[in-house]
Amino acid sequence: MSLNRIQVFAPASVANVGPGYDTFGFAIEHLGDVISLTKRSDSKLNILKSAGADLPTDPAKNVATVAIQSLLDSLDSQQGFDVHIKKLFKPGSGLGSSASSASGAVYAANKLLGEPYTDEQLLEFALDGEELASGMIHADNVAPSLLGGFQAVRSYEPLELFRIPTPEELRVLIIFPDVEVKTSEAKGLVPKELSVKEAREQWGNVGALIHAMHTADYKLMSHAITDRIAEPVRRQLIPHYGKVKQYAMDHGAVGFNISGSGPSMFALFKSAETAKSCMTEIEKVYQKADLPVMLNLSRINPNGCQVI
Amino acid sequence: MSLNRIQVFAPASVANVGPGYDTFGFAIEHLGDVISLTKRSDSKLNILKSAGADLPTDPAKNVATVAIQSLLDSLDSQQGFDVHIKKLFKPGSGLGSSASSASGAVYAANKLLGEPYTDEQLLEFALDGEELASGMIHADNVAPSLLGGFQAVRSYEPLELFRIPTPEELRVLIIFPDVEVKTSEAKGLVPKELSVKEAREQWGNVGALIHAMHTADYKLMSHAITDRIAEPVRRQLIPHYGKVKQYAMDHGAVGFNISGSGPSMFALFKSAETAKSCMTEIEKVYQKADLPVMLNLSRINPNGCQVI
Repeated sequence: MSLNRIQVFAPASVANVGPGYDTFGFAIEHLGDVISLTKRSDSKLNILKSAGADLPTDPAKNVATVAIQSLLDSLDSQQGFDVHIKKLFKPGSGLGSSASSASGAVYAANKLLGEPYTDEQLLEFALDGEELASGMIHADNVAPSLLGGFQAVRSYEPLELFRIPTPEELRVLIIFPDVEVKTSEAKGLVPKELSVKEAREQWGNVGALIHAMHTADYKLMSHAITDRIAEPVRRQLIPHYGKVKQYAMDHGAVGFNISGSGPSMFALFKSAETAKSCMTEIEKVYQKADLPVMLNLSRINPNGCQVI
Repeated sequence: MSLNRIQVFAPASVANVGPGYDTFGFAIEHLGDVISLTKRSDSKLNILKSAGADLPTDPAKNVATVAIQSLLDSLDSQQGFDVHIKKLFKPGSGLGSSASSASGAVYAANKLLGEPYTDEQLLEFALDGEELASGMIHADNVAPSLLGGFQAVRSYEPLELFRIPTPEELRVLIIFPDVEVKTSEAKGLVPKELSVKEAREQWGNVGALIHAMHTADYKLMSHAITDRIAEPVRRQLIPHYGKVKQYAMDHGAVGFNISGSGPSMFALFKSAETAKSCMTEIEKVYQKADLPVMLNLSRINPNGCQVI
């Protein structure tokens, strides 16, 4: 008897991670999409009313169904699905919302179709969905959401990724102040050109961060989580960015930067205890400013999409 | 009784290593400078006639004595030295000639002065010497020559380096066709600006090469040893570059690129045997063109300067 219905969790993810603009991303725990797929007896892709966010119900405009369609096309399959998306975090928060939907959707569809593809092979279909959302492909969110862990993109053409090991004790604090930052607006601020000197600084830090993750060298890690490209222009879009970063760095954070195009921020800590003592103070900053804030403390999620 | 005379070997080095422009460098074996220092009874720095190359005898113009002077100044020392440099490779070959001289000189002087500094601390003095030669500092040659292994520069200001582990079996073939390429000319060809897209490609490869060295992933390594900045414009200065690279890559080389600003090239191999079978054919290419060529096969030298 073949499976007719499946539910998967597709984790949210932190892209860029400081120096790795369009290159680095890691999956987190607790936040993500819960995607339910049910086989239909016809060939229709049908989006049910989503939970946790208002997502497009036109299958040609929803990243999940665009990604599934790309998978179906490559298999020459006419299988239809009912798709339900429950978002456990807000779209537009800088945590790879469309990447989670696209990854979870193709992962679930592949399972219901009898796993014609490996998880790695699903990447291109998920990226087709993501492309609809952002106008370009962002493997730095899709790869960690689909495959888990800390992923790095060596090359986009052809697409080649590698997975960076991370120290077991490392914890990630996500700080999401509830203000809207449009990815397109945040992208527009980023320069199109770099001097070779600036670019060299950036790749010195890209290299150092990978080395620091391999060796658990926290001093090098804290120096390497820096960004010449996006942070200088995007931090202004995030309320109290400087204050919160300073506080976290003064109180044990190994690194702090913008998650994706923001407004979420991430901070890395050597232990959950250090992170927890920071959380209370950061909450106070936003309470005082009367701004809703969501905090999430987790490991770097070693898993990507999983059946639940 | 304190030491009055010392002789050190300062290895030659391969900078850039494909994507790591001004960032990566590793030390090699066999080629380098043999630097002999003898304490004088006065405060004079005296350059003896060098062997293997005509080097400046004015102590204000020789990288070795400029580097030693910087070390002496920081100690407020009046100690004079006779300095003899024997070059085991040709200056201007793209193997960090001035970096070897500067590194060996400060390493030797520090020993004769009773080791007031650690090897890592000597870096800044060696860089002062190197700055004289190239008009800017190149830690990517000086660091491996002084400290050994595969070194990466995270940051120039402040200077911070880290050492990348390399697979034990890895072998480096140096190919030096005896034509002159002025560093200043080679530098002039390199673009001053990069698009963010080009820069991202470069740091994707920088990151991938570090990861590949950590994990001995030779497939990733071979993809990562590529360069968007210097190789496209400098290869034209090196006779038969395309032909020799193609031959090496078709016959087992894991990676091939320009060493520093050339004309030397380097090729990495998984074993000495694979490298040796390539050497004969590469020699033939240059014999046929009636161009002298020097080949050197070695490990990545785990040691920097050493007393001999």
